[in-house]
Amino acid sequence: MMKAVCLLSGGMDSSTLAYVAKDMGYEIYALHATYGQRTANRERECARKIAQLLGAPEFLEISLDYFARIGGSSLVDRSMEIADHEEGEKGIPSTYVPFRNSNLLSIATSFAESRGADAIFIGVQASDYAGYPDCRPEFIEAFQRVIDLGTADDTHIRLITPFVRMNKADILRTGLALGVPYEHTWSCYRSDGPACGRCDSCHYRLEAFRQVRVRDPITYAEAE
Amino acid sequence: MMKAVCLLSGGMDSSTLAYVAKDMGYEIYALHATYGQRTANRERECARKIAQLLGAPEFLEISLDYFARIGGSSLVDRSMEIADHEEGEKGIPSTYVPFRNSNLLSIATSFAESRGADAIFIGVQASDYAGYPDCRPEFIEAFQRVIDLGTADDTHIRLITPFVRMNKADILRTGLALGVPYEHTWSCYRSDGPACGRCDSCHYRLEAFRQVRVRDPITYAEAE
Repeated sequence: MMKAVCLLSGGMDSSTLAYVAKDMGYEIYALHATYGQRTANRERECARKIAQLLGAPEFLEISLDYFARIGGSSLVDRSMEIADHEEGEKGIPSTYVPFRNSNLLSIATSFAESRGADAIFIGVQASDYAGYPDCRPEFIEAFQRVIDLGTADDTHIRLITPFVRMNKADILRTGLALGVPYEHTWSCYRSDGPACGRCDSCHYRLEAFRQVRVRDPITYAEAE
Repeated sequence: MMKAVCLLSGGMDSSTLAYVAKDMGYEIYALHATYGQRTANRERECARKIAQLLGAPEFLEISLDYFARIGGSSLVDRSMEIADHEEGEKGIPSTYVPFRNSNLLSIATSFAESRGADAIFIGVQASDYAGYPDCRPEFIEAFQRVIDLGTADDTHIRLITPFVRMNKADILRTGLALGVPYEHTWSCYRSDGPACGRCDSCHYRLEAFRQVRVRDPITYAEAE
Protein backbone atom coordinates (compact mmCIF):
# COMPACT_ATOMS: atom_id res chain seq x y z
CA MET A 1 0.00 0.00 0.00
CA MET A 2 1.28 3.49 -0.83
CA LYS A 3 2.07 5.67 2.18
CA ALA A 4 1.44 9.38 2.55
CA VAL A 5 2.34 11.84 5.26
CA CYS A 6 -0.68 14.12 5.71
CA LEU A 7 -0.45 17.49 7.40
CA LEU A 8 -3.52 17.28 9.58
CA SER A 9 -4.31 20.37 11.64
CA GLY A 10 -7.84 19.34 12.53
CA GLY A 11 -9.36 22.09 10.38
CA MET A 12 -11.87 21.48 7.61
CA ASP A 13 -9.35 21.69 4.78
CA SER A 14 -6.73 19.33 6.16
CA SER A 15 -9.39 16.85 7.30
CA THR A 16 -10.84 16.84 3.80
CA LEU A 17 -7.30 16.44 2.50
CA ALA A 18 -6.75 13.29 4.56
CA TYR A 19 -10.00 11.83 3.21
CA VAL A 20 -8.88 12.64 -0.35
CA ALA A 21 -5.51 10.93 0.25
CA LYS A 22 -7.23 7.86 1.67
CA ASP A 23 -9.62 7.82 -1.29
CA MET A 24 -6.59 7.90 -3.63
CA GLY A 25 -5.38 4.69 -1.97
CA TYR A 26 -2.80 6.00 0.48
CA GLU A 27 -2.21 4.81 4.01
CA ILE A 28 -2.21 7.95 6.17
CA TYR A 29 0.74 8.94 8.37
CA ALA A 30 -0.76 11.88 10.23
CA LEU A 31 1.48 14.80 11.17
CA HIS A 32 -0.08 17.27 13.58
CA ALA A 33 1.71 20.44 14.65
CA THR A 34 0.93 22.71 17.54
CA TYR A 35 2.71 26.04 17.81
CA GLY A 36 1.28 27.75 20.83
CA GLN A 37 -1.96 28.75 19.12
CA ARG A 38 -4.98 29.43 21.37
CA THR A 39 -7.02 26.54 20.03
CA ALA A 40 -4.38 23.79 20.21
CA ASN A 41 -6.38 21.40 22.40
CA ARG A 42 -9.50 21.40 20.27
CA GLU A 43 -7.50 21.07 17.05
CA ARG A 44 -5.52 18.12 18.43
CA GLU A 45 -8.70 16.34 19.52
CA CYS A 46 -10.21 16.80 16.05
CA ALA A 47 -7.05 15.71 14.23
CA ARG A 48 -6.77 12.57 16.37
CA LYS A 49 -10.37 11.67 15.67
CA ILE A 50 -9.97 12.08 11.90
CA ALA A 51 -6.73 10.04 11.92
CA GLN A 52 -8.43 7.30 13.90
CA LEU A 53 -11.45 7.22 11.57
CA LEU A 54 -9.06 6.80 8.63
CA GLY A 55 -7.11 4.00 10.32
CA ALA A 56 -3.82 5.93 10.32
CA PRO A 57 -0.99 3.69 11.63
CA GLU A 58 0.83 6.72 13.09
CA PHE A 59 -0.12 10.08 14.54
CA LEU A 60 3.00 12.17 15.07
CA GLU A 61 2.40 15.26 17.14
CA ILE A 62 5.09 17.92 17.11
CA SER A 63 5.31 21.07 19.15
CA LEU A 64 6.72 24.06 17.31
CA ASP A 65 6.73 26.18 20.43
CA TYR A 66 9.61 28.19 19.03
CA PHE A 67 7.12 30.11 16.89
CA ALA A 68 5.78 31.70 20.06
CA ARG A 69 9.34 32.68 21.03
CA ILE A 70 10.08 34.03 17.56
CA GLY A 71 6.82 35.98 17.82
CA GLY A 72 5.33 38.40 15.34
CA SER A 73 2.05 36.54 14.69
CA SER A 74 -1.26 37.10 16.46
CA LEU A 75 -1.95 33.39 16.04
CA VAL A 76 0.71 32.46 18.60
CA ASP A 77 1.52 35.71 20.42
CA ARG A 78 -1.10 36.00 23.16
CA SER A 79 -0.34 39.69 23.66
CA MET A 80 -1.65 40.43 20.14
CA GLU A 81 -5.34 40.45 19.31
CA ILE A 82 -6.88 38.36 16.58
CA ALA A 83 -8.78 40.78 14.36
CA ASP A 84 -12.33 40.26 13.13
CA HIS A 85 -12.61 39.50 9.44
CA GLU A 86 -12.84 42.70 7.38
CA GLU A 87 -14.16 42.68 3.85
CA GLY A 88 -11.71 43.79 1.17
CA GLU A 89 -8.69 43.87 3.48
CA LYS A 90 -5.42 43.41 1.58
CA GLY A 91 -1.92 42.36 2.52
CA ILE A 92 -0.53 39.78 4.93
CA PRO A 93 -2.90 39.18 7.87
CA SER A 94 -1.66 39.46 11.48
CA THR A 95 -2.20 35.71 11.91
CA TYR A 96 0.61 34.99 9.42
CA VAL A 97 3.30 32.84 11.07
CA PRO A 98 6.48 33.65 9.13
CA PHE A 99 7.45 30.80 6.78
CA ARG A 100 5.27 28.28 8.62
CA ASN A 101 4.60 26.01 5.67
CA SER A 102 8.28 25.55 4.98
CA ASN A 103 8.77 24.48 8.60
CA LEU A 104 5.86 22.03 8.33
CA LEU A 105 6.97 20.64 4.97
CA SER A 106 10.53 20.13 6.24
CA ILE A 107 9.30 18.05 9.17
CA ALA A 108 6.90 16.20 6.88
CA THR A 109 9.79 15.34 4.56
CA SER A 110 11.96 14.07 7.44
CA PHE A 111 9.03 11.91 8.58
CA ALA A 112 8.25 10.72 5.04
CA GLU A 113 11.88 9.85 4.27
CA SER A 114 12.29 7.84 7.45
CA ARG A 115 9.03 5.90 6.83
CA GLY A 116 9.66 5.32 3.13
CA ALA A 117 6.51 7.28 2.23
CA ASP A 118 5.69 8.08 -1.38
CA ALA A 119 3.91 11.38 -0.88
CA ILE A 120 3.20 14.36 1.35
CA PHE A 121 -0.24 15.95 1.28
CA ILE A 122 -0.67 19.59 2.26
CA GLY A 123 -3.93 21.52 2.07
CA VAL A 124 -2.73 24.87 0.73
CA GLN A 125 -5.37 26.54 -1.38
CA ALA A 126 -6.12 29.33 -3.79
CA SER A 127 -7.95 31.56 -1.32
CA ASP A 128 -4.92 31.61 1.00
CA TYR A 129 -2.22 32.80 -1.30
CA ALA A 130 -3.36 36.35 -1.66
CA GLY A 131 -2.34 36.71 1.99
CA TYR A 132 0.16 33.99 2.82
CA PRO A 133 3.22 33.88 0.54
CA ASP A 134 4.05 30.28 1.50
CA CYS A 135 0.79 29.00 -0.01
CA ARG A 136 1.58 30.02 -3.60
CA PRO A 137 1.86 27.27 -6.23
CA GLU A 138 5.37 28.54 -7.13
CA PHE A 139 6.40 28.09 -3.50
CA ILE A 140 5.17 24.49 -3.57
CA GLU A 141 7.05 23.80 -6.83
CA ALA A 142 10.23 25.27 -5.34
CA PHE A 143 9.83 23.12 -2.24
CA GLN A 144 9.44 19.99 -4.41
CA ARG A 145 12.90 20.76 -5.80
CA VAL A 146 14.30 21.15 -2.28
CA ILE A 147 12.88 17.72 -1.44
CA ASP A 148 14.35 16.14 -4.58
CA LEU A 149 17.83 17.58 -3.91
CA GLY A 150 17.87 17.33 -0.12
CA THR A 151 16.90 13.68 0.36
CA ALA A 152 18.77 10.49 -0.47
CA ASP A 153 19.04 9.66 -4.17
CA ASP A 154 16.78 6.61 -3.83
CA THR A 155 14.09 8.62 -1.98
CA HIS A 156 11.20 9.82 -4.14
CA ILE A 157 8.60 11.88 -2.34
CA ARG A 158 5.86 13.71 -4.23
CA LEU A 159 4.33 16.82 -2.76
CA ILE A 160 0.59 16.63 -3.48
CA THR A 161 -1.65 19.70 -3.14
CA PRO A 162 -5.12 18.72 -4.36
CA PHE A 163 -6.65 22.04 -3.26
CA VAL A 164 -4.10 24.47 -4.62
CA ARG A 165 -6.48 25.77 -7.32
CA MET A 166 -9.73 25.23 -5.38
CA ASN A 167 -11.67 27.61 -3.18
CA LYS A 168 -13.11 26.63 0.17
CA ALA A 169 -16.57 25.82 -1.25
CA ASP A 170 -15.02 23.42 -3.79
CA ILE A 171 -13.10 21.74 -0.97
CA LEU A 172 -16.25 21.42 1.10
CA ARG A 173 -18.17 19.88 -1.82
CA THR A 174 -15.33 17.37 -2.27
CA GLY A 175 -15.39 16.52 1.43
CA LEU A 176 -19.16 16.13 1.63
CA ALA A 177 -19.01 13.67 -1.29
CA LEU A 178 -16.37 11.66 0.63
CA GLY A 179 -18.35 11.74 3.88
CA VAL A 180 -15.95 13.88 5.93
CA PRO A 181 -17.43 14.28 9.44
CA TYR A 182 -17.16 18.07 9.73
CA GLU A 183 -18.45 17.95 13.32
CA HIS A 184 -14.94 16.62 14.14
CA THR A 185 -13.08 19.56 12.59
CA TRP A 186 -12.13 22.95 14.06
CA SER A 187 -11.31 26.25 12.35
CA CYS A 188 -11.75 29.14 14.81
CA TYR A 189 -8.52 31.05 15.58
CA ARG A 190 -9.87 32.50 18.81
CA SER A 191 -11.59 29.92 20.90
CA ASP A 192 -11.61 26.20 21.70
CA GLY A 193 -15.38 26.37 21.68
CA PRO A 194 -17.90 27.65 20.81
CA ALA A 195 -16.36 29.11 17.63
CA CYS A 196 -16.32 32.94 17.56
CA GLY A 197 -17.89 33.24 14.09
CA ARG A 198 -16.01 36.49 13.44
CA CYS A 199 -12.29 35.78 12.84
CA ASP A 200 -11.03 35.25 9.27
CA SER A 201 -11.03 31.50 9.70
CA CYS A 202 -14.64 31.30 10.96
CA HIS A 203 -15.71 33.78 8.29
CA TYR A 204 -14.36 31.74 5.38
CA ARG A 205 -15.65 28.48 6.84
CA LEU A 206 -19.19 29.83 7.32
CA GLU A 207 -19.11 31.38 3.86
CA ALA A 208 -18.20 28.00 2.31
CA PHE A 209 -21.06 26.25 4.13
CA ARG A 210 -23.47 28.98 2.99
CA GLN A 211 -22.29 28.63 -0.61
CA VAL A 212 -22.91 24.87 -0.70
CA ARG A 213 -26.18 25.33 1.24
CA VAL A 214 -25.30 22.93 4.03
CA ARG A 215 -25.48 23.64 7.75
CA ASP A 216 -22.10 23.73 9.56
CA PRO A 217 -22.44 21.12 12.34
CA ILE A 218 -20.20 22.90 14.88
CA THR A 219 -21.45 25.41 17.47
CA TYR A 220 -20.93 29.17 17.11
CA ALA A 221 -21.07 31.81 19.84
CA GLU A 222 -23.19 34.08 17.69
CA ALA A 223 -24.96 33.79 14.38
CA GLU A 224 -23.29 35.88 11.64
CA MET B 1 24.09 47.44 11.21
CA MET B 2 23.25 44.45 9.02
CA LYS B 3 21.74 41.49 10.84
CA ALA B 4 22.41 37.82 10.22
CA VAL B 5 20.89 34.69 11.67
CA CYS B 6 23.77 32.25 12.23
CA LEU B 7 23.22 28.54 12.67
CA LEU B 8 25.55 27.93 15.59
CA SER B 9 25.88 24.32 16.72
CA GLY B 10 28.95 24.87 18.85
CA GLY B 11 31.15 22.86 16.49
CA MET B 12 34.32 24.18 14.86
CA ASP B 13 32.69 24.96 11.51
CA SER B 14 29.69 26.89 12.75
CA SER B 15 31.80 28.77 15.30
CA THR B 16 34.17 29.80 12.53
CA LEU B 17 31.11 30.74 10.47
CA ALA B 18 29.86 33.12 13.17
CA TYR B 19 33.30 34.79 13.30
CA VAL B 20 33.26 35.15 9.50
CA ALA B 21 29.78 36.75 9.63
CA LYS B 22 30.89 39.16 12.35
CA ASP B 23 34.03 40.00 10.34
CA MET B 24 31.79 40.79 7.33
CA GLY B 25 30.00 43.39 9.48
CA TYR B 26 26.90 41.49 10.57
CA GLU B 27 25.29 41.57 13.99
CA ILE B 28 24.82 37.92 14.99
CA TYR B 29 21.41 36.43 15.83
CA ALA B 30 22.47 32.99 17.05
CA LEU B 31 20.19 30.02 16.38
CA HIS B 32 21.12 26.85 18.25
CA ALA B 33 19.25 23.60 17.74
CA THR B 34 19.30 20.51 19.89
CA TYR B 35 17.66 17.36 18.61
CA GLY B 36 18.26 14.73 21.22
CA GLN B 37 21.90 14.17 20.27
CA ARG B 38 24.19 12.69 22.96
CA THR B 39 26.40 15.75 23.22
CA ALA B 40 23.69 18.42 23.47
CA ASN B 41 24.88 19.93 26.77
CA ARG B 42 28.46 20.45 25.71
CA GLU B 43 27.44 21.84 22.32
CA ARG B 44 25.01 24.31 23.92
CA GLU B 45 27.67 25.53 26.36
CA CYS B 46 30.12 26.10 23.49
CA ALA B 47 27.55 27.83 21.28
CA ARG B 48 26.53 30.18 24.11
CA LYS B 49 30.14 31.09 24.78
CA ILE B 50 30.84 31.87 21.12
CA ALA B 51 27.63 33.95 20.84
CA GLN B 52 28.58 35.86 23.97
CA LEU B 53 32.12 36.52 22.73
CA LEU B 54 30.65 37.93 19.51
CA GLY B 55 28.17 40.16 21.36
CA ALA B 56 25.10 38.48 19.83
CA PRO B 57 21.92 40.33 20.91
CA GLU B 58 19.89 37.09 20.80
CA PHE B 59 20.57 33.39 21.34
CA LEU B 60 17.52 31.39 20.32
CA GLU B 61 17.64 27.77 21.41
CA ILE B 62 15.20 25.39 19.81
CA SER B 63 14.57 21.77 20.62
CA LEU B 64 13.86 19.56 17.63
CA ASP B 65 13.08 16.59 19.81
CA TYR B 66 10.79 15.24 17.11
CA PHE B 67 13.86 13.96 15.28
CA ALA B 68 14.34 11.42 18.05
CA ARG B 69 10.70 10.33 17.63
CA ILE B 70 11.03 10.16 13.86
CA GLY B 71 14.17 8.09 14.41
CA GLY B 72 16.43 6.51 11.82
CA SER B 73 19.66 8.30 12.72
CA SER B 74 22.36 7.07 15.10
CA LEU B 75 22.97 10.71 16.07
CA VAL B 76 19.64 10.93 17.91
CA ASP B 77 18.52 7.31 18.35
CA ARG B 78 20.27 6.07 21.48
CA SER B 79 19.57 2.43 20.59
CA MET B 80 21.85 2.75 17.53
CA GLU B 81 25.63 2.82 17.81
CA ILE B 82 27.78 5.59 16.42
CA ALA B 83 30.34 3.90 14.21
CA ASP B 84 34.06 4.61 14.25
CA HIS B 85 35.34 6.44 11.20
CA GLU B 86 36.30 4.04 8.42
CA GLU B 87 38.55 5.09 5.59
CA GLY B 88 37.00 4.94 2.10
CA GLU B 89 33.47 4.30 3.34
CA LYS B 90 30.84 5.46 0.84
CA GLY B 91 27.17 6.33 1.02
CA ILE B 92 25.05 8.11 3.60
CA PRO B 93 26.46 7.67 7.13
CA SER B 94 24.26 6.34 9.97
CA THR B 95 24.49 9.75 11.67
CA TYR B 96 22.45 11.33 8.84
CA VAL B 97 19.31 12.99 10.23
CA PRO B 98 16.83 12.96 7.33
CA PHE B 99 16.43 16.45 5.81
CA ARG B 100 17.89 18.16 8.87
CA ASN B 101 19.26 21.20 7.07
CA SER B 102 15.90 22.02 5.54
CA ASN B 103 14.36 21.95 9.02
CA LEU B 104 17.11 24.22 10.34
CA LEU B 105 16.94 26.63 7.41
CA SER B 106 13.15 26.89 7.71
CA ILE B 107 13.40 27.91 11.36
CA ALA B 108 16.27 30.26 10.53
CA THR B 109 14.11 31.92 7.86
CA SER B 110 11.16 32.35 10.27
CA PHE B 111 13.55 33.91 12.79
CA ALA B 112 15.24 36.09 10.15
CA GLU B 113 11.94 37.32 8.69
CA SER B 114 10.56 38.27 12.09
CA ARG B 115 13.77 40.17 13.04
CA GLY B 116 14.17 41.88 9.68
CA ALA B 117 17.54 40.15 9.16
CA ASP B 118 19.38 40.46 5.84
CA ALA B 119 21.10 37.10 5.79
CA ILE B 120 21.28 33.55 7.10
CA PHE B 121 24.69 31.91 7.52
CA ILE B 122 24.99 28.12 7.42
CA GLY B 123 28.25 26.20 7.56
CA VAL B 124 27.63 23.49 4.98
CA GLN B 125 30.84 22.43 3.31
CA ALA B 126 32.36 20.51 0.46
CA SER B 127 33.54 17.55 2.51
CA ASP B 128 29.98 16.92 3.77
CA TYR B 129 28.11 16.60 0.55
CA ALA B 130 29.45 13.29 -0.53
CA GLY B 131 27.46 11.87 2.38
CA TYR B 132 24.69 14.31 3.27
CA PRO B 133 22.39 15.24 0.37
CA ASP B 134 21.16 18.40 2.12
CA CYS B 135 24.65 19.94 2.06
CA ARG B 136 24.95 20.11 -1.74
CA PRO B 137 25.30 23.54 -3.37
CA GLU B 138 22.25 22.77 -5.57
CA PHE B 139 20.22 22.14 -2.42
CA ILE B 140 21.25 25.52 -1.03
CA GLU B 141 20.34 27.26 -4.31
CA ALA B 142 16.94 25.54 -4.31
CA PHE B 143 16.34 26.62 -0.72
CA GLN B 144 17.17 30.24 -1.60
CA ARG B 145 14.31 30.10 -4.10
CA VAL B 146 11.97 28.72 -1.41
CA ILE B 147 12.95 31.66 0.82
CA ASP B 148 12.36 34.18 -1.97
CA LEU B 149 8.91 32.77 -2.78
CA GLY B 150 7.78 31.85 0.73
CA THR B 151 8.41 35.12 2.55
CA ALA B 152 6.70 38.51 2.25
CA ASP B 153 7.46 40.44 -0.94
CA ASP B 154 9.40 43.12 0.94
CA THR B 155 11.53 40.53 2.77
CA HIS B 156 14.97 39.91 1.25
CA ILE B 157 17.05 37.28 2.99
CA ARG B 158 20.29 36.01 1.48
CA LEU B 159 21.48 32.52 2.30
CA ILE B 160 25.26 32.75 2.76
CA THR B 161 27.46 29.64 2.75
CA PRO B 162 31.07 30.80 2.92
CA PHE B 163 32.39 27.24 3.32
CA VAL B 164 30.44 25.45 0.62
CA ARG B 165 33.54 24.94 -1.56
CA MET B 166 36.09 24.71 1.30
CA ASN B 167 37.44 21.70 3.12
CA LYS B 168 37.85 21.54 6.88
CA ALA B 169 41.52 22.57 6.82
CA ASP B 170 40.64 25.72 4.81
CA ILE B 171 37.92 26.53 7.34
CA LEU B 172 40.34 26.06 10.22
CA ARG B 173 42.94 28.34 8.58
CA THR B 174 40.21 30.98 8.12
CA GLY B 175 39.18 30.65 11.77
CA LEU B 176 42.73 30.79 13.14
CA ALA B 177 43.28 34.03 11.21
CA LEU B 178 40.12 35.46 12.82
CA GLY B 179 41.10 34.31 16.32
CA VAL B 180 38.32 31.74 16.83
CA PRO B 181 38.78 30.21 20.31
CA TYR B 182 38.61 26.53 19.33
CA GLU B 183 38.83 25.49 22.99
CA HIS B 184 35.18 26.64 23.15
CA THR B 185 33.97 24.39 20.31
CA TRP B 186 32.81 20.77 20.34
CA SER B 187 32.65 18.21 17.55
CA CYS B 188 32.52 14.68 19.01
CA TYR B 189 29.30 12.78 18.20
CA ARG B 190 29.75 10.34 21.08
CA SER B 191 30.70 12.08 24.27
CA ASP B 192 30.32 15.36 26.12
CA GLY B 193 33.95 15.02 27.10
CA PRO B 194 36.67 13.99 26.66
CA ALA B 195 36.15 13.64 22.88
CA CYS B 196 36.31 10.03 21.64
CA GLY B 197 38.80 10.73 18.83
CA ARG B 198 37.33 7.92 16.70
CA CYS B 199 33.90 8.96 15.33
CA ASP B 200 33.68 10.61 11.90
CA SER B 201 33.38 14.04 13.44
CA CYS B 202 36.47 13.69 15.66
CA HIS B 203 38.37 12.10 12.78
CA TYR B 204 37.80 15.01 10.39
CA ARG B 205 38.48 17.60 13.09
CA LEU B 206 41.79 16.01 14.10
CA GLU B 207 42.78 15.63 10.46
CA ALA B 208 42.18 19.34 9.84
CA PHE B 209 44.32 20.32 12.83
CA ARG B 210 47.09 17.97 11.62
CA GLN B 211 46.96 19.47 8.13
CA VAL B 212 47.39 23.03 9.39
CA ARG B 213 50.01 21.86 11.94
CA VAL B 214 48.25 23.34 14.97
CA ARG B 215 47.41 21.49 18.17
CA ASP B 216 43.67 20.99 18.82
CA PRO B 217 43.10 22.60 22.26
CA ILE B 218 40.30 20.23 23.39
CA THR B 219 40.90 16.99 25.31
CA TYR B 220 40.68 13.54 23.70
CA ALA B 221 40.18 10.18 25.40
CA GLU B 222 42.94 8.61 23.34
CA ALA B 223 45.53 9.82 20.89
CA GLU B 224 44.77 8.72 17.31
